[in-house]
Order: sequence, then C-alpha cells, then structure tokens
Amino acid sequence: MGIKAVKFGGTSLCSAAQMKKAAEIVLADADRRVVVVSAPGKRSPQDEKITDLLYRCYEAPEGEEKVRLFERIRERFDEILSDLGISLDLSQEYETIWNTAGKFGGRDYFVSRGEYLCAKIFSGLLGYEFLDAADGIFFHEDGTFDDERTRETLSSLLARRNAVVIPGFYGKMPNDTIRTFPRGGSDITGAIAADAAGAYLYENFTDVSGFLLADPKIVDKSETVSIISYKELRRLSYMGASVLHEDAIFPVRRSGIPINIRNTDSPDDPGTMIVEKKDRLGTVSGIAGKKGYVLIRISRDRIGSDAAAARILSGIFERRRIPIYGDSHSVDSIGILVEARDIAGKRDYILNEICQCLEPEAVGLTDGLALICVVGERLCPAVPCAVFCALSELLERAQFIDLGADDIVLTVGIREAAFEQAVRKIYEKLSG
Amino acid sequence: MGIKAVKFGGTSLCSAAQMKKAAEIVLADADRRVVVVSAPGKRSPQDEKITDLLYRCYEAPEGEEKVRLFERIRERFDEILSDLGISLDLSQEYETIWNTAGKFGGRDYFVSRGEYLCAKIFSGLLGYEFLDAADGIFFHEDGTFDDERTRETLSSLLARRNAVVIPGFYGKMPNDTIRTFPRGGSDITGAIAADAAGAYLYENFTDVSGFLLADPKIVDKSETVSIISYKELRRLSYMGASVLHEDAIFPVRRSGIPINIRNTDSPDDPGTMIVEKKDRLGTVSGIAGKKGYVLIRISRDRIGSDAAAARILSGIFERRRIPIYGDSHSVDSIGILVEARDIAGKRDYILNEICQCLEPEAVGLTDGLALICVVGERLCPAVPCAVFCALSELLERAQFIDLGADDIVLTVGIREAAFEQAVRKIYEKLSG
Repeated sequence: MGIKAVKFGGTSLCSAAQMKKAAEIVLADADRRVVVVSAPGKRSPQDEKITDLLYRCYEAPEGEEKVRLFERIRERFDEILSDLGISLDLSQEYETIWNTAGKFGGRDYFVSRGEYLCAKIFSGLLGYEFLDAADGIFFHEDGTFDDERTRETLSSLLARRNAVVIPGFYGKMPNDTIRTFPRGGSDITGAIAADAAGAYLYENFTDVSGFLLADPKIVDKSETVSIISYKELRRLSYMGASVLHEDAIFPVRRSGIPINIRNTDSPDDPGTMIVEKKDRLGTVSGIAGKKGYVLIRISRDRIGSDAAAARILSGIFERRRIPIYGDSHSVDSIGILVEARDIAGKRDYILNEICQCLEPEAVGLTDGLALICVVGERLCPAVPCAVFCALSELLERAQFIDLGADDIVLTVGIREAAFEQAVRKIYEKLSG
Repeated sequence: MGIKAVKFGGTSLCSAAQMKKAAEIVLADADRRVVVVSAPGKRSPQDEKITDLLYRCYEAPEGEEKVRLFERIRERFDEILSDLGISLDLSQEYETIWNTAGKFGGRDYFVSRGEYLCAKIFSGLLGYEFLDAADGIFFHEDGTFDDERTRETLSSLLARRNAVVIPGFYGKMPNDTIRTFPRGGSDITGAIAADAAGAYLYENFTDVSGFLLADPKIVDKSETVSIISYKELRRLSYMGASVLHEDAIFPVRRSGIPINIRNTDSPDDPGTMIVEKKDRLGTVSGIAGKKGYVLIRISRDRIGSDAAAARILSGIFERRRIPIYGDSHSVDSIGILVEARDIAGKRDYILNEICQCLEPEAVGLTDGLALICVVGERLCPAVPCAVFCALSELLERAQFIDLGADDIVLTVGIREAAFEQAVRKIYEKLSG
C-alpha cells in the first residue's frame, strides 16, 4: 500500500460542507494518508479568508477592533465545528493563540493559526492524527528552508504514523519561533510532506479541475490540460499564468513524484498531472501571455554575427540591471525584448549608450508589444501553423517571433490592442 | 532626355547573334547612352568564358600551350567580328595585349582584355564612343576602390560624351597599372557608371528575366520577383541566393538609382526592380536557404535574462572568431546558431568553455540543420501562416524559428534531409 499526499486549498475547506467533501475524498482512498491543509478560504466572493483576517487582526492596534476581528475568526471555526457536529473544543487553543500573540509569538505564528486550527478540525473529522508543521518543517537562521533537517525529521515522524493531517504554510526557525512560507505556501508544505512520506503521488485539491489551456479571464470555458511537464509549468508561470509556484514543486520534482491538480467540487475529474517527462510530446500545455513589452531594434552591417557587439550590448543591460526577456540576432540586426517597466525612465540613457558603444546605423524602439507564449515541449508542426493562421485571419502581424532554444515556447509579439482577440483565436485553433 | 546605364553580362555578348540582340536593346531606347560590357561568356554549357581562357593563358608557361590559348581567344573575337560583318581590325590590339602581358602589364591587365575587346567591338556595332575604364575608374594604393577620384573623373568624361561603351571589370591603380574588381565586377562598373552619369536607371541585362522567388535548382519554373529592396537583396545574397553582389550596388544605392535586372533574350519581360523602398511591403521577395548549420543549446535557470551570461558567451565566440549566424535567448535557455564549418574541430573546446564559464544545467548541439529564410520587409500575416502550414503538411518540425529584429527575414531551421522538399512546399504556398 503506497501513500498519496493530499493537499486541500482554502476554498476546499472554507465551510463544514466543503470539509465534508474533502474528508470524503480522503477517506475514499486508503492511500491518502498524508493530508496537508490550508486555512479556510472564502465561502463567497465577498467573504474574507481566515488568513487575511488573521493578518488584519495582528496588524490592528490593541483595542476593540482587534478583539472584534479575533472574535470573527473564532466564530468561523466554531461555526464549522458545530456544522460538522464533531465534538472538539478549541477554546483552549483560541486562548493560547491570543495570549501567545501578545507575548512575542510573532506575526508568522499568529497568521499561520488558520492552518493550525483547520488541521486540528480536519484531523478530528478524519480521525487522522494531527502533526504540527512546527515539529517537522524547519528553516535556517537566514529564513531559507532547511531541507536536510526537515527531510530527516519529517520522514521519521511520518514513518511512525499511519495517517496524519499537517497544517500548511509554516515551519519552525532554529530559535523555535514560527516562520511562514510566502503566501500560497501550503502548496510547498504539501510537496515537502509528499517527499518526506515517500508518496507516489501528490494530489493538490483546489477549486478548479486542473490547469486551463488559456487564461479564463480571456477565454471562456477553456479546456483543461491533462498533462504538463515541470518545464512547461515553469514557463507558463513565468508568463504570469496562475499555476503552482515553482518553489512549491522542487521537493516532489526532485523525487520524481508527479503532482495531480484536482477539484474538490468535482472529485471525479482527472485534473492535471504535472510530471517530469510527458509520454507524448508535441501538444500544447498552455497559452499564456502578457502585455507591456518593448522591442529594441539595432541595425548595422553584420552586427548580428558580431560577437563583440553582442558582448558590449549585454554589458549595457547588465550594468543597468535590466533583465532581457529575450533577444534575437540576425545578419544586420539585433532585437532585444525587455519589459517596458524595466526600462521606464532609462530609455534615453540606454539608446544613447547603444549609439555610443556600437555606432549602429539605426536604433529603434517598438513599444506596446504583447507577447503570446504557446507552451509545449517539442511542439508538433501543426502548432505554429495554427498560431500563425490565427494571426493571419486577424490580419495581425507578428512583430517578434521566436522558438526558444529549449524548444518549449513559441513566442509571438503583437500589438497590445490585439492581445485578447489573438489569444482567443489561437486558443480556438489549438483546442478541441 | 535622361540617361539609362545599361550593363550586359557575358552570356548577352557571347556571340555575334547575342551582341546584335544587345545592340537592338540599346538602340531601341535613346536614353540607353552609357553601356558597360562584360567579356563574352559561354555560348553553350561546354563552352569556355573568354575571361577563363585569359586566366588560363596568363597562367600557362611560355610556350606552345600559351600561344594556342591566346590564338583561341583571338579566334573567338575574330569570329564575332566577321559574323557581325563590321569592319574593325583588332590585330593591332591583340599584338599590344600579347606584348604588354610579356612586359609586366600584369595579370589584371591581361585577364581584363576580354571586357576591353568586347567594348571595342560593341562600341563599333553601336556607333558609340569607346571609353576605357582605365581612364575613368580608379583604385587606391591599397587596392580599394577610389570612389572620389572615379566620380570626379568619370562624371566629367561622361558629361562630355553623348553615348559610350565602357569595358567592365577593371580600373587603374595610382601607378598606372590595371587592377580588376573581384569576378563579376562588371556589375560594379555598371553601377559606378550609372552613378557617374547621373542615370535615372541602371539596367542590368543578364540571361534571366530577373530574380527568381526560389532557387531554380530546387523549384522548377519559379516565379520572378518584380520588385525587391536593397535590404531584402542583401539578406538573400547572404543566404547564398545568386543575386547581385552587394559591392555592385552601393554606388547606385547611394544615389537612389534603381536597378532593373533584365533578360537580353526576352527584352520585353519587365524583370526585377531593385529599389531603396518598395511601395508595398509585406510580400515575399525571395525564399533562400542553406544547409550546414548547428544549433548550440544552453540551459540554466534564468540564463536567458542573464546579461552577464550573454556577455560571457559572446566573448567565447569572439575569442575563437566564430561568426554567430543568429541567436535567441529565452527564459531558461540560449540558442546559438553557427555554421558547422565554422566550428569544425572546435566543438569540444567550445562546449567545454561554455560549461566552465557558465555552469549550465545542460549544453547540447543540434546538428544537421538547414535554414530556410523567407525574405520580405514587414512580411504580412499570411506569410508565416503559409510557411508553417507548409511544414505542417510535411509533418516537419521547425527546430529554430526567428523573425529578425529588422523585420525582413523569417528564418526556420529544419532537418537538412527535409530542406529541398520544404523549400518546394513553402514556395508552393507562397507563390501565385
């Protein structure tokens, strides 16, 4: 019998009803023995997440407002408890939290109590043992994650337990204070636990049935992607697609544990599998994109094959600490793609320096570019065909075209005004 | 009444019959008053060009063979003369050439006598004045073209004459010896003469009706391109398309004189116009390509936006004097395209140096790439669509895709084995 590590996000645990669904999912599969939970999230768009309430409460000065906010938090948990109908008294916990916060427990301690209390409740509901993240997840003195100590301790804690619920989001510093991962850090806790447990799968239950092929804010009812590689995920995340943060991936990626993004509200959907290596390459794993790029074009006789010019040019951007999104050198020209915000206020300096150092025949800026990235390892020939036919149908000229050297992303740059329409048309051609 | 400078290539002047056609062309338009000629070329594929015979004759040691070769040259010219039926005695010229060659006239003097004699004959046929290139075209001490002196002298020589024939290919050194332009240099003479004459058009008569859209060795009966810009021409020539050498262009380009490539055998064909600026952009001016490229792929976390890495990498190629054909940087990878012959015997060194300097996660070579360049300023959206649909129909994956920053060339890299087929399919989609 193997182990599946299961993580539930805030929406999956926002109410007693949701918690029951989550519990059903866990109990439906005897392998689901390592459970990591977020703090209860929003029950409706107007609702507030427990973690946000905790932050507000912590920041509030001593007084009525602070007390009122803490009261709201207690009420949320008590309501869940009473709706679940399980006998668990958290009043002692509330008191400890309130008192510890007042006695230098620190902000990270306080704001991570949502996960802590949620794990308490969920472990009670499941009949699984509660395992505090403070006992198994550790940070270094400098605040970075202590991988070695965590692996050692957490593995042995898990080895001695049959089934546990672990609160996400936090761990312990060498001085025994609590420290949180960056927001969304419960995903990391899940990955760490999956790794330490030697799980064969890390199931990440959310409120969507996996990753969507295109941004749902642009494309209505986008298809779900059934399988995606870590590399592809990273590229999508780089282009702003809301996917798992890469920090949340390394512990399982290292151990070759696949991640399955699933939907608590639709537990039969297969969701998205995130794997090291896809069996079948060539298909599209995502269409992402962003506005706000600028293409700097530099022309001079043979400049594209002039290594010295390339070196000098890189130096200019290096000295000014301007990240280059991408660049392309061809015979008589070099194009450098940067984000507009990265050169804000520095345009004239940069162009001047380029002119002085390289004496080009011409330097120009193309402003207002949106990039569309079609992501997929070794995209099959039909993909660029579909992408450029979509643009052709829109009579939209690609002003930048590049297939990255790692053969994962086909990037096209078009006018910002055409961005959404182009994404929709490309999606239309590529989906189904 | 304006002036057209007209240049005839070797095939247009290879026999009396061809010369008559050429003369008819000149005399059909009173503006054609500055004529530049090559040496007579091949009359059949097995035939030898006069210039090649002159080279062989010059290189031959004193003796029977040398005499025999010179005899063949004389016979070619005498045959043309007798077939033309014009009374012109070149025997004095032959003697001078033979004697001067023996008296340190030099190789350049000797091998350029094909143009010299051809111009003599053609001027007789036309009734135009013979103007020796030695009197109007000059080189600097270091062998480079003396633009200033040439412009001044040739302009004033031409201003004082109504209609002239000038031999192509050569000019005079400051020490009064003869020097030739690189082979094919009659095109340069034509451009220089057009510029000096203040011509409004430079007509370059050849044996084809202009530039073909695709290599005739690959595509049967390729369309002719009606108009092409200097920039486009340069890119095609860089990719090995047999078009005008760029040295043959600068004198007219500078003065804004368009070039018209025309066919002596089909003088009514409009041919190809080469202009500074096309009225209508977006169309394809040529499909060129070459085999023998290698893509070096370097991967590392964020290496693509790491200006220091780009600088170091350029330095590696700069130190080894390896020209970079093109390169593309994206998030986690850099791809560098070089010609295989440029890294022959240096592969291991380069890869080692890259590994040592950049500590990449992975370095790889993709060998055996052919590049196909679709050339046209600001290609319209239908062009990339056609290109990638062609590849898609062939199930051929593009492993390199780049639109140069000057927005003139869409380059795709595919397997060498698929090169010809892909060029044909792309041509098929783009033509007509």
